[in-house]
Amino acid sequence: MIILGIDPGLATIGLGLIERGTAKNDLRLLDCCTIETAKGFSLPARLKELAGDLRGFLREHKPDLAVVEKLYFQTNVKTAMDVAAARGVILLTLAEEGVEILEPTPLELKSAVTGDGRADKKQVSDMLRHILHLPENAFAAERDDTTDAVALAVYGAVSSTKLNTIIIQ
Amino acid sequence: MIILGIDPGLATIGLGLIERGTAKNDLRLLDCCTIETAKGFSLPARLKELAGDLRGFLREHKPDLAVVEKLYFQTNVKTAMDVAAARGVILLTLAEEGVEILEPTPLELKSAVTGDGRADKKQVSDMLRHILHLPENAFAAERDDTTDAVALAVYGAVSSTKLNTIIIQ
Repeated sequence: MIILGIDPGLATIGLGLIERGTAKNDLRLLDCCTIETAKGFSLPARLKELAGDLRGFLREHKPDLAVVEKLYFQTNVKTAMDVAAARGVILLTLAEEGVEILEPTPLELKSAVTGDGRADKKQVSDMLRHILHLPENAFAAERDDTTDAVALAVYGAVSSTKLNTIIIQ
Repeated sequence: MIILGIDPGLATIGLGLIERGTAKNDLRLLDCCTIETAKGFSLPARLKELAGDLRGFLREHKPDLAVVEKLYFQTNVKTAMDVAAARGVILLTLAEEGVEILEPTPLELKSAVTGDGRADKKQVSDMLRHILHLPENAFAAERDDTTDAVALAVYGAVSSTKLNTIIIQ
């Protein structure tokens, strides 16, 4: 099962792709990267670039499940509106490509990955390295957007494992 | 020239379509209607429905210009985020169909249509009837979303007239 985590944004969209095998803890990081849209362009042009790039990624990697974080109100209303617009385009593109979607809140995400809804960034990335069997500095060079996206993908793996467990029981 | 005004929303999207002839005040209302998305469905499913319906409308009516109102912060953050997501999908669909876009603020819209940025709904609909040569109760049966969409289309006609005047001079 291929799971794509997406950290929504307008300038930078984080993508984290993992594969879940049949064994319980068999999670493997396949890719983590960003889609970026050029600041000099209009909002519609940037949304078009985002949709096109994401569509290309989905057709190449064919994820079974996508996890897109829910947004909370931010101090900068203009930025919040632009990110919400980009998030709408991300959800549309996933729906049009037929990918199942989960939308956890930041609290649900941290709780599922670390067991603590108030975990800080270091606790999250330490736990991700542990879960994905990665070396000490695996996320040192990565941007926050990418690490968040990998956390979202792990959330999807954990949640769908729970679902499977419930179904099997 | 065909101009489409769009009042963005998630549950109800207002559409107003007008034609501008060659003479200065030659504006004619072609259509006003709404796109509605079903409340029982998920956000991605509703965005997909919206994009599909809007794409169909654009391909049928082939507007040269679309006018989509800018959003302002609303008290209900959840609603504001959903409307911003829908607005993102509207902008994307227009960009992918190659339609030019104007994005006026509510103040710019009212100023252009009535000459008064603080005009109320009645003043706006009275002015629209006057500009579009419509009878007394033309907008009585219409929803606010539709009237706003027609106002946005008229904004587009007025703005592009100004542009043409500048270019000709």
